[in-house]
Amino acid sequence: MSDFDVASLSCPLPIEQYPHVLLAHGGGGRLMQQLINQVFLPAFGGAEQVQHDAATLSLGGDRIALTTDSYVVHPLFFPGGDIGSMAVYGTVNDLAMAGAQPQYLTAGFILEEGLPMSILWQVVQSMAAAAKTAGVRIVTGDTKVVDRGKGDGIFINTAGVGVVRGDRTISPSQVQVGDVVLVNGDIGRHGIAIMAVREGLMFETAIESDSAPVAADVLALLDAGIEVHCLRDLTRGGLASALNEIAVAANLGVRLDERAIAVRDDVQGACEILGFDPLYLANEGRFIAIVPSQQAEAALECLGDGAAEIGVVTETSKPPVTMMSEIGSLRTVDLLSGEQLPRIC
Amino acid sequence: MSDFDVASLSCPLPIEQYPHVLLAHGGGGRLMQQLINQVFLPAFGGAEQVQHDAATLSLGGDRIALTTDSYVVHPLFFPGGDIGSMAVYGTVNDLAMAGAQPQYLTAGFILEEGLPMSILWQVVQSMAAAAKTAGVRIVTGDTKVVDRGKGDGIFINTAGVGVVRGDRTISPSQVQVGDVVLVNGDIGRHGIAIMAVREGLMFETAIESDSAPVAADVLALLDAGIEVHCLRDLTRGGLASALNEIAVAANLGVRLDERAIAVRDDVQGACEILGFDPLYLANEGRFIAIVPSQQAEAALECLGDGAAEIGVVTETSKPPVTMMSEIGSLRTVDLLSGEQLPRIC
Repeated sequence: MSDFDVASLSCPLPIEQYPHVLLAHGGGGRLMQQLINQVFLPAFGGAEQVQHDAATLSLGGDRIALTTDSYVVHPLFFPGGDIGSMAVYGTVNDLAMAGAQPQYLTAGFILEEGLPMSILWQVVQSMAAAAKTAGVRIVTGDTKVVDRGKGDGIFINTAGVGVVRGDRTISPSQVQVGDVVLVNGDIGRHGIAIMAVREGLMFETAIESDSAPVAADVLALLDAGIEVHCLRDLTRGGLASALNEIAVAANLGVRLDERAIAVRDDVQGACEILGFDPLYLANEGRFIAIVPSQQAEAALECLGDGAAEIGVVTETSKPPVTMMSEIGSLRTVDLLSGEQLPRIC
Repeated sequence: MSDFDVASLSCPLPIEQYPHVLLAHGGGGRLMQQLINQVFLPAFGGAEQVQHDAATLSLGGDRIALTTDSYVVHPLFFPGGDIGSMAVYGTVNDLAMAGAQPQYLTAGFILEEGLPMSILWQVVQSMAAAAKTAGVRIVTGDTKVVDRGKGDGIFINTAGVGVVRGDRTISPSQVQVGDVVLVNGDIGRHGIAIMAVREGLMFETAIESDSAPVAADVLALLDAGIEVHCLRDLTRGGLASALNEIAVAANLGVRLDERAIAVRDDVQGACEILGFDPLYLANEGRFIAIVPSQQAEAALECLGDGAAEIGVVTETSKPPVTMMSEIGSLRTVDLLSGEQLPRIC
């Protein structure tokens, strides 16, 4: 039935090695990078910014940011959030990472036949509330329903558009040796919040996801005149993956200081029980900003309580990202091969 | 786990009547209208254009159109197209329906674990080719993978953005009594193409989907100075649903002339075998333009071979849409209650 002559197509992926899509191809690690670099970029190419959180583009007389994310998180509701609020905040945050003021979102729903209407209603109310919190408008949408057993309740895609603030280029290419890496809070809570629900783990108090919009923080940095070189939100693959991607793209190294990276005691405890590393856990309200060291203090002030300077950019190194541990040993922080937690976002 | 107090939420949908999502809620008929009008619009509201193909918005100094669609078509490949080309053309066409020149697309993939990598590769190549044909760039994307049995091979969401051409408002509110309804070709081929594959029907020659980009035709109308009052592409729900929506929104009537509506003999034959009505079949490269009658001829010239004047706008009427049949009787053309063909797009 296909119009394609399959024989004439040469897929550059090592199809013998990975003949089928694996969960890890969506996990934010090495396999997803391979899929992006060897399938999507060669096909769609041309857009320099295509592999970042959002593309920055010319439209009419403006410089805009455009981004998309699908949300397939399981379960749909978890402490601190749900698929609806995530679908708004996640996309708003991607626009912010391009230095843009988020303005409009689209909402595409793929519903599974049999989904209780009351669940859909709750999710939609949550999206509306989140849009209000984040200062964006959901302006157009689409609904598809797939047969029972061909979906999983609700999948949501949101795309977002905003106007880029100022004319600074925010990209790994701007990162310089001596820059510092700032993070806007403690890490790992979203991953553990999801995992705890899935595994039925009970803590003294529930660990709530950090899911939140961060655009206001980013715009505060820009408005304060901070020379922001690079921004990245710490979603799938966590801090470790974000820094590896940036370091490789910039052809530089990053040295982290474990003592400066805040991980809540309950998150650390859950990680030990479950065998996770907080550096790889997904966050939904955390990002790094890479700025000149002399502006670190002013930038931290913009980011408010909980923000910290966690590392420094070095000359190119192999491995690209290392971390000085609390006991003073140097540890490699590698890009994840597979996926730590499927369907975390 | 939810942050919501379900008891405090009053869902305006008749939940007793439809406690669960049905396939028909995505089918383009009455149930989908109910979902949009009673759940999505009240929650996201405010955007006047939200229920059309695309929202028209101010962004920076420009008037832009923004749209989204998810594609869940089954099967993935069919005569005349595949999910990849549809995902590009469908969204490009939605932008065109707002009078915009399509410029950038996003691409969000939800893949099912176990999907053959070669299928993904084919679909991506098809998207790239379709983007080239339609003159748009796919500039950013996202990939999620869901566990086996929680998806169905590939779902694709595309969102699109473009700058609105000229300053004309294109909307049902602009439609006037005496305007004529033009269509750019024969109807029903996409629906039958999909159904034939699903049902294993063989025709003398395969019926190919009409899937194609129509933005160039729309821009030709606008550039020729045609006073385009309303545009609508004839996807889910077909010609009948599109006209019903417009007539109700405009508080006017539409009288169709069956003899003027082209349906290919093979499509008509398949409809008779399968029990379908071509007026309700989905198309992926067909749209209606409602224009002043004195510009009908000039407009048809822009639309080229196959375009036809198929009806006229009347004073408000009940039912809103009627059709003079080939034998001279007047027939009601109602909004579809359920869904004629699930997962047609």
